[in-house]
Amino acid sequence: MPDYEISALNKVTRGPKRASYDQEEINGILDAGFLCHIAYTWNEKAIVIPTAYGRDGDKLYIHGSLKNRMMSCLLEAGEACVSVTHLDGLVLARSAFHHSANYRSVNIFGSVKSIEDDHEKMHALRCIINHMVPDHWEYVRQPNDKELRATLVIEIKIDSASAKIRTGDVVDEKEDLQLPVWAGIVPISETIGAPVSDPLLEGNIPVPESVKNYVQKSNLKNK
Amino acid sequence: MPDYEISALNKVTRGPKRASYDQEEINGILDAGFLCHIAYTWNEKAIVIPTAYGRDGDKLYIHGSLKNRMMSCLLEAGEACVSVTHLDGLVLARSAFHHSANYRSVNIFGSVKSIEDDHEKMHALRCIINHMVPDHWEYVRQPNDKELRATLVIEIKIDSASAKIRTGDVVDEKEDLQLPVWAGIVPISETIGAPVSDPLLEGNIPVPESVKNYVQKSNLKNK
Repeated sequence: MPDYEISALNKVTRGPKRASYDQEEINGILDAGFLCHIAYTWNEKAIVIPTAYGRDGDKLYIHGSLKNRMMSCLLEAGEACVSVTHLDGLVLARSAFHHSANYRSVNIFGSVKSIEDDHEKMHALRCIINHMVPDHWEYVRQPNDKELRATLVIEIKIDSASAKIRTGDVVDEKEDLQLPVWAGIVPISETIGAPVSDPLLEGNIPVPESVKNYVQKSNLKNK
Repeated sequence: MPDYEISALNKVTRGPKRASYDQEEINGILDAGFLCHIAYTWNEKAIVIPTAYGRDGDKLYIHGSLKNRMMSCLLEAGEACVSVTHLDGLVLARSAFHHSANYRSVNIFGSVKSIEDDHEKMHALRCIINHMVPDHWEYVRQPNDKELRATLVIEIKIDSASAKIRTGDVVDEKEDLQLPVWAGIVPISETIGAPVSDPLLEGNIPVPESVKNYVQKSNLKNK
């Protein structure tokens, strides 16, 4: 896959050494989570809120209720900016100035449209659920007509994107290396706990393979 | 502390039962992390990027380089919207429609100004470092004049805010409770690892109390 083209919109100007425009790397960061932050304009103000997403190729899907303000504003603008960030650690330098964090972060700029066709809508919702927990869609009761009508689904086609990634050790000024000051990394990771069955669960319904695999794989990744 | 006043700007319209305007609750969510997402307007587009913050009373501080695009745009607008989100779990319902997440999320709307006074700037930077790791400022080399001049520090005074919080069990349609479908919660938490000393660390400089306490307290919270 070719890199995303660099423009004034997606160019990482601060810390360009940490920048990437590589589609596979960007997709990897998108697929490592399901929570994004989306910016939208309302009454001439830029507002940001968190929401869940799914990815299929160069498309992100989000959903909400028909009256969702963020989604109405995105549809009006016809475009969206999405940020996905994973925090991997604190970078505690000898100097306050060189304190930082290790992270993987993606900025997506895309064109927005509402999905009206029932089959496409179902596909997008499957994509959102399976992005959270791979293959989980097959284990749940799928949306009925009423639920489908009550759900607004938006496609964000990725037109442009960039990633910013910091990994590795502390970087300090050379003259600070002799200081009697501790420096190092404090790793941060997401831990997925053991599934807790719903108290109202009937009979002996086992935890599905999708959920077992999700918990196992997520925690292996963090080892 | 009184609640934040409810206006069209900060009112939680979708899922109002999950809304809170309580200052202490909002401050608690702000203090449980140091990574926020900020929206800004550039070329008439709403853009969102992640950054670190510190809190002191009703003020948030962020910092960056003098040419930081986000910060220049915020100063031009004179206002900012900030989102802080902590993910606490997946809510895996019997129906796709009732899938959700447990989370604590805050939206801040504030007025923005650049901090020019050196003492105030130093205070704000201390606040950002200590928000990351409490009391850590005293253990590091504090900024010199050159570093202070190279750093743009912005104050965001919280004018309005709201929180949205989901906790607890799956909520399904009554008629779905008999389905042979598993439902439950998958807890998600942040794990803070053991500090890794910098390979270039001189002699036997111990991990400071600030870092030890941070690691210990963060992991106790998740138990």
